Amino acid sequence: MDIEQFRKAGYDAIDRICDHFYSLREKPVVAQVNPGYLRHLIPDSPPQKGQEWTSIVDDYQKLIVPGLTHWQHPSFFAYFPTACSFEGILGDLLSSSTSNPGFNWFASPACTELEAVVMDWAAKLFGLHKIFWNVNEVGGGVIQTTASDSALTAVVVARTRYVNEHPGVTLESLIIYVTTQTHSFGKKAAMILGLRVRALDVDETVTTDNTGLTGDGLIAAVKEDHARGLHPFVLIATVGTTSSGAIDQVADLGAAIKKNYPSVWLHVDAAWAGVTLACPEYREIAQLPGINESADSLCINFHKWGLTNFDASALWVRERKQLIDALDITPEFLRTKEGDTGTVIDYRNWHLSLGRRFRSLKLWFVLRSFGVEGFQANIRKCIALNNSFAEQIRASPIFELVTSPSFALTVFRLLPRSAAAAGELDSVNALNREFYSGLQTRSSLVLTQTLIGEVFCIRFAVGSSRTEQSDIEDAWGVIKETGESTLRKMGYEQ
Amino acid sequence: MDIEQFRKAGYDAIDRICDHFYSLREKPVVAQVNPGYLRHLIPDSPPQKGQEWTSIVDDYQKLIVPGLTHWQHPSFFAYFPTACSFEGILGDLLSSSTSNPGFNWFASPACTELEAVVMDWAAKLFGLHKIFWNVNEVGGGVIQTTASDSALTAVVVARTRYVNEHPGVTLESLIIYVTTQTHSFGKKAAMILGLRVRALDVDETVTTDNTGLTGDGLIAAVKEDHARGLHPFVLIATVGTTSSGAIDQVADLGAAIKKNYPSVWLHVDAAWAGVTLACPEYREIAQLPGINESADSLCINFHKWGLTNFDASALWVRERKQLIDALDITPEFLRTKEGDTGTVIDYRNWHLSLGRRFRSLKLWFVLRSFGVEGFQANIRKCIALNNSFAEQIRASPIFELVTSPSFALTVFRLLPRSAAAAGELDSVNALNREFYSGLQTRSSLVLTQTLIGEVFCIRFAVGSSRTEQSDIEDAWGVIKETGESTLRKMGYEQ
Repeated sequence: MDIEQFRKAGYDAIDRICDHFYSLREKPVVAQVNPGYLRHLIPDSPPQKGQEWTSIVDDYQKLIVPGLTHWQHPSFFAYFPTACSFEGILGDLLSSSTSNPGFNWFASPACTELEAVVMDWAAKLFGLHKIFWNVNEVGGGVIQTTASDSALTAVVVARTRYVNEHPGVTLESLIIYVTTQTHSFGKKAAMILGLRVRALDVDETVTTDNTGLTGDGLIAAVKEDHARGLHPFVLIATVGTTSSGAIDQVADLGAAIKKNYPSVWLHVDAAWAGVTLACPEYREIAQLPGINESADSLCINFHKWGLTNFDASALWVRERKQLIDALDITPEFLRTKEGDTGTVIDYRNWHLSLGRRFRSLKLWFVLRSFGVEGFQANIRKCIALNNSFAEQIRASPIFELVTSPSFALTVFRLLPRSAAAAGELDSVNALNREFYSGLQTRSSLVLTQTLIGEVFCIRFAVGSSRTEQSDIEDAWGVIKETGESTLRKMGYEQ
Repeated sequence: MDIEQFRKAGYDAIDRICDHFYSLREKPVVAQVNPGYLRHLIPDSPPQKGQEWTSIVDDYQKLIVPGLTHWQHPSFFAYFPTACSFEGILGDLLSSSTSNPGFNWFASPACTELEAVVMDWAAKLFGLHKIFWNVNEVGGGVIQTTASDSALTAVVVARTRYVNEHPGVTLESLIIYVTTQTHSFGKKAAMILGLRVRALDVDETVTTDNTGLTGDGLIAAVKEDHARGLHPFVLIATVGTTSSGAIDQVADLGAAIKKNYPSVWLHVDAAWAGVTLACPEYREIAQLPGINESADSLCINFHKWGLTNFDASALWVRERKQLIDALDITPEFLRTKEGDTGTVIDYRNWHLSLGRRFRSLKLWFVLRSFGVEGFQANIRKCIALNNSFAEQIRASPIFELVTSPSFALTVFRLLPRSAAAAGELDSVNALNREFYSGLQTRSSLVLTQTLIGEVFCIRFAVGSSRTEQSDIEDAWGVIKETGESTLRKMGYEQ
């Protein structure tokens, strides 16, 4: 394809994207295909000779699009919706056209410098203490691929620091702390690193008021583990768990760590809910004081609820030296005069890989195009929509909120009217699994499930910037109807 | 920005990309900016109110583009050039517009299924044994972010398998094997995992004929380490090292491992040179027989020399079960009925993160648009261009090849005519560092350096699809002139 062919194909791709968004609301949210649908539609080997672009892009439309689940659909309430703004697409497009692995300053000054500046913009947007700002050269911010990467990076740095401060401690005696509501990436980090992990039980407080771990819970666990000869070295605390939106009490945890166990690293995963820090009214509940006082590292994903296309996981650290000590390895072929003098950031030492995409561009575009006020408006709108949904659940005789709604997430379940039936966990779980199966047959919306303790629940997550009040009302209609029919089918009175 | 504003901005971005490629040859290869250039050109906080798109994109052109180093410039001969095809840009564009984290089949069937099919296309393109094909459900292929991720993933899986097979072995006694020419990601993997690493010395064979590690070298090392109570559990062998293009002898290594130490995992990093397997005439030298016979895992980056935009690192494993055993963690909120029945690939268990971009789309576009023949033509052209450069070096009285040219990479240095002077390593190194400094002041091309043993050398890597014979001749002119002036400046006779 030459440049003029690209111009034509590029315009055409832009038009296809416009068509996609015009028709998005009319599409099924979840792909209506069966496992293995694609393999028999595509040849089993690449063509020997190159093919015409029009046939390729037509196949995209015909074969691929029907197999996509639309995470930006106004009725996508599963997991957490993924951001996709036009500004984000344009940022990705220009970034892709210069395909730059930007691993050090020399590899591309603009990639490094824009990331450093824009991460400072983001730090200010969220009210982070200036120790986290790149400009001050103590802590700093870096864009990672996912919250899993951010957490894994934090755990690696924490382990390196702990082992350096405690020579002779074996890897076998190290232990990572998460809670029973922490995202599974905590346990996956332990699998990757071959280390122990302990999930501190917060299920009870979560079902009461959606608060998670407290300082007392942490101290009790550390004492137990020390008595067993183990060394807790990192805690992954969460502001807004994936499961239920629970909020660990960061200030309390930070104070407990600082006073008693200063070698324990505090990583705060606010991958989903961290964007609410853009709104002053949510800073207290989203744990800003504790983060600013005590977090060694903090992750907020712009690609969930932050209007920026996947991937864009923001990670801040309080001391960049810790990152670099843990991750810097410089063979001759990666040396540069700017790196040698230490006057620049070489982001390859701030993450686990070497190469990295130029992701700050889309974030810069988003923050400029929306402005602080536009960014805040999106957060507030989604929370208001979720509140309107939670009100329906609260008022309904057949549903209950399993825990308090958290920002833009509601966790609920069907609950039979009879008090006796409601007390039987197994049968209520069975009822709700049946209800969930019923919801899965509907192509007009999608939700996902979770367990809190042993309670099977349904999650309703608002986050697509295209979701409107009418979509919430439509969803409520489907959910109510499916709930009622499930109760009938399972023989419960209504 | 609404849909029609996006259409206009999208067309404009496509036009800007066309302009970029029309003018690429005239631009300086390396950004002509100083550290810190950007921060004082940009406000230090995000704007309160959203801004007009035109002002944003104009700032991209005015502030960002001059700070980019152009890895696709025809005269970029540093590191390894990064691929950027129009088909790749279009794949990224459409993928970005559906911003899908595709971590399991349910999250987006098309993302999973296209990746499985296209990785099989790639396996066939490279002549990989059918055990590596996804369709056969024994081994399989997956797209990772970078070769660093691919290698780290392989090491994690290798460690898990080794520890499971050798209960009671401590993490402290495990040791990763690389060579003195392996990419630094080997040592970085050890830092990340907190494990020992040993670099087996191959500098001598590399300077002789650019072959690397052999089975005998490996066995001798394992015996030594076993005697010290250590447990080598993985070898990262390389086909085409970054430093010099050296080639470890995979068949020989595989046979030695299989016969003597079957618990040792053989990861083959062919991140750069693996694409030559597309050409039958390079399969022997690029170690295809050994890979097919013995590699437990294999990495080939499409984003270096494979016409596909960064990132697209292909990883194949001989036994997918090993990957999944090491990396599968499934909380309730990630369970799906398709995953539970085990009839689909859930790619989240094939890499370290959870979310992942829809990268198979661009690879599908590239393989269809170029066809096998177009892909091969690009490889052959770059090798021919490099050979023409190496001939100039070979024929020159002031340069020498430090090792045999490897595929599209030439490693060379300035060498004073006097035999006595040539024998003094320190002074010749000093001369070549001066020569390299001279090259760095030229904006019309860029090269990078390496060390082989203690010999400081310059690397000349061909790989941009836009490089033509005239660019090689221009580069040779600059290199020759800079070499001559360096000799004069340093007082050597010519």
